[in-house]
Amino acid sequence: MGNGTFSSLHGGNWQEVRQKYGWEPGELLDFSANINPLGPPACVLEALIKNLQAVKRYPDPTNLELKSSLAAYLGVQPDSLLVGNGATEIIYFLCFLLRPRTVLVAQPTFSEYARAAEAAGARVIFCPLLPTQGFKLDVEGYCCLLDQSDMAFLCNPNNPTGNLLPYDTVYRIWQESRRRGIWLIVDESFLDFVEDWPELSLVQVAAREEKLVVLRSLTKFFALPGLRLGVGIAAPGIIKYLEERSDPWRVNILAQLAGAVAVKDKEYQIRTWEWLKVEKAYLFEGLASLPGLRPYRSETNFILVDISLSGWKSGELTNALAQHKVLVRDCSNFPVLKGRYIRVAVKERESNTILLRLLRTFLQGKGYEREHAHLSHSARGDSVE
Amino acid sequence: MGNGTFSSLHGGNWQEVRQKYGWEPGELLDFSANINPLGPPACVLEALIKNLQAVKRYPDPTNLELKSSLAAYLGVQPDSLLVGNGATEIIYFLCFLLRPRTVLVAQPTFSEYARAAEAAGARVIFCPLLPTQGFKLDVEGYCCLLDQSDMAFLCNPNNPTGNLLPYDTVYRIWQESRRRGIWLIVDESFLDFVEDWPELSLVQVAAREEKLVVLRSLTKFFALPGLRLGVGIAAPGIIKYLEERSDPWRVNILAQLAGAVAVKDKEYQIRTWEWLKVEKAYLFEGLASLPGLRPYRSETNFILVDISLSGWKSGELTNALAQHKVLVRDCSNFPVLKGRYIRVAVKERESNTILLRLLRTFLQGKGYEREHAHLSHSARGDSVE
Repeated sequence: MGNGTFSSLHGGNWQEVRQKYGWEPGELLDFSANINPLGPPACVLEALIKNLQAVKRYPDPTNLELKSSLAAYLGVQPDSLLVGNGATEIIYFLCFLLRPRTVLVAQPTFSEYARAAEAAGARVIFCPLLPTQGFKLDVEGYCCLLDQSDMAFLCNPNNPTGNLLPYDTVYRIWQESRRRGIWLIVDESFLDFVEDWPELSLVQVAAREEKLVVLRSLTKFFALPGLRLGVGIAAPGIIKYLEERSDPWRVNILAQLAGAVAVKDKEYQIRTWEWLKVEKAYLFEGLASLPGLRPYRSETNFILVDISLSGWKSGELTNALAQHKVLVRDCSNFPVLKGRYIRVAVKERESNTILLRLLRTFLQGKGYEREHAHLSHSARGDSVE
Repeated sequence: MGNGTFSSLHGGNWQEVRQKYGWEPGELLDFSANINPLGPPACVLEALIKNLQAVKRYPDPTNLELKSSLAAYLGVQPDSLLVGNGATEIIYFLCFLLRPRTVLVAQPTFSEYARAAEAAGARVIFCPLLPTQGFKLDVEGYCCLLDQSDMAFLCNPNNPTGNLLPYDTVYRIWQESRRRGIWLIVDESFLDFVEDWPELSLVQVAAREEKLVVLRSLTKFFALPGLRLGVGIAAPGIIKYLEERSDPWRVNILAQLAGAVAVKDKEYQIRTWEWLKVEKAYLFEGLASLPGLRPYRSETNFILVDISLSGWKSGELTNALAQHKVLVRDCSNFPVLKGRYIRVAVKERESNTILLRLLRTFLQGKGYEREHAHLSHSARGDSVE
C-alpha cells in the first residue's frame, strides 16, 4: 500500500477502510466490490432468519438440496456439481489437488488464479490484455501459450475489464486445450449478470467433457459474499474424483440454505437484469462525460475506468473518494493497470449519482488546480523574462 | 454402507437419516455428533440475528476482530493464528500446502487426517491404539514411527476414544518430532471440554516454535458446526507463510462474528463444564450398568462403547436406535472398531435418559431373544437326543 494511498488486494475491504478512515461498513457507498446492490433476495434472508438454529447442526456433506437447486438453475445434473466455500476456494482446491506445473492466465484478470497457482507450486505465464486493444483477448496468442501450460484459467466476463468472449470463442479455446490434454478452468462468476447467459455459458460442455471445469459464483449476483458459495461444473467422474479428496463440510449450512432458495427466485433475477440495463448505461454515460475519464464498455456489473488523462493517480483518487465515504477499486495491484485505472461496480441510481457528482467535483478541482498552476507558471515566466 | 444398516463416514449426518427414515433433523436426538447440547451461546444467536445483513459484505480478509477475540481466549498473540473454515479445512490446507510424503496417524482416530494426507498424495502409516490397552497411545511406538514420517497428527483428546494425553507426554512427542525436523499437528478440537485445558494445551508452545501447529475448533464446544470455524496456532512466521498461500475469504462473515463473541462468554463455558461433569458421570454409569455394554472412560464430551458382548452388531444397534429417532455413531468405518463399537455424545439429562432407556429395551430384548434361542436350541436338542 502506498504512503497515504488507499488500496488493497481486492474490493470490499471495509475493515481496511474502517481502520484507515473510521467509517463503519454501513456508512460506506461501496463501489469497490462487484456485488448486486439489490441485496440478497428476500427469500434468502427469510430462510436464514427461520433457520438460524441450523448452525448447531453439521452441514449436509452431500449438499443434496443445494445441488438439486443449482442443477435446475444451471441446466445440468447434480452429479456434475462441486460446491465450494466461494468460487475462490474451488480455484485453490483445483490448483492444490491437480498440481499443475505451468498455469496460463490473462493479465489483467482476477488475481487469485495466479496466487493459487503459485501457492500450489506452479509457474504462472501471462497472456497480456492490451489497453490499446480494449483489453480484448488475443485468442491466437492465448492458444499458442496453451502449448507451454498444463492448466489455463479464463475469466468470462473478465474481471476487471468487463469483456465478454462469445460462446464460439470460448468453445474454440476449450477445443484447443482439449487437443493439448490440459485443464481449462472457465470462471463465469460474473456471467449471471448477462441476461442470455445460458447461450454464453460452457456449463453444458463442462458437464460432459473431461479436463474442463466451469466456475460459477453465488456471491456476486445473489449478493452473498459474506456467506461464501461457489460451484464448479464438470463431468461426473471429475466431480467424484474431487469430492473424494476434499473436506466434507466445505459449504456452511446457511450457505447451503441460502443457495438452495436464491437460484429459484426468478423474479429477483429479472429485476437484477432490468436494474443493470438502466443503471449501467446511466453510470457509463456519466463517467464518459467527466473530464479525463475513459470508461470501458462492460458486459457485466462493473466498469473499468482509465483515469490517466484526469491528472489523478488511481491511488490518490481512491483515497480522496474514501474520505467522502465512497469506496472504489484502485486497480494499482493489477500490474498492467498500475496507477491509471479504477473499477467501479454499478449500483442503484442514488449511489451512482453520488459517485458521479463527487468525481465531477474532484476532476474539476484537479483541472482547476492544473489550470491555475499553468497560469501561475505563465505569470512567473512572464515576470522572469 | 451395509445392507439395511445405518452407518456413515461421520456423525451428525441428518440428511442420510432423513432420506433413510424420513425423520426431520428437529425430530432427532443426535448422539452421533459431539456437539455441546447447550446449543450456541445466546450472545452468538443475538449477534447473528442483529448482523444478518452482513452476508452482503465480504468477510474481513484479515479476520481482525475474530483473531483479537481468539488470541485473548487462547492466551497468544493474533499473529500466531490462522483461522479456517472449520478445523478440518485447516487439516486439508496443511496437507495440500506442506505436501508431506509420509504421514503418521493413530488408529482409531479422526478419519480426516488420513483422508487429507492421501488426497495430498502422501502415504499414511498408522500407530495402532489397542482395545486391550484401553486405546492408550503407545508413546514409544509412536515416536519410533516418527522416524518414517515427515508429518504426524495427534488428536488430543482423541476422537473417538476420549483418551487425553497429559501435557508432558504431548510435549515429549513434540520434542521428538522437532528433533527429527518433521511437522507435528496436534488437534485439540475437543480440549475445550476439559476445564483445565490451558494446563494441557500446546498452544503456547506452538505460538513460538517451528513445525508445530495446534488446531482448535469452535464448532464442538460452542455448538456451531453449521457455521464452520476452526483455528490453527503456530509461530508468526509459519502463519504468514500459510496466509500468503491461502484463499483470503476462507471464514464466512457470520462465523467471524459468531467466533468473536462466543469465546468471550465465560459463563457459557462454566455452564458447559458443570453440565458435562454431571451428565458424563450419569451417562457413563448408565451405560456401564447395561448388559453387554462396556463404556470407555472419556476426558471429553463423548463416550466410546464396546457393545461386542451385547449380541448386537454396531450397525444393527445404530439402525434400531435410528428407527426410534435416536442417532448414535456406528464406529464401523474405524478399521479397528469394526462392528463392535458405538460412540455417543453426552447430552442433556432428558436425552441421556431416553438413550439409556431405549438401549435397555433393545439389550434386554436381544438378551431375551438369545436366551430364548438358547432355550429353543436346548429344547430342540432335547427332542433330538
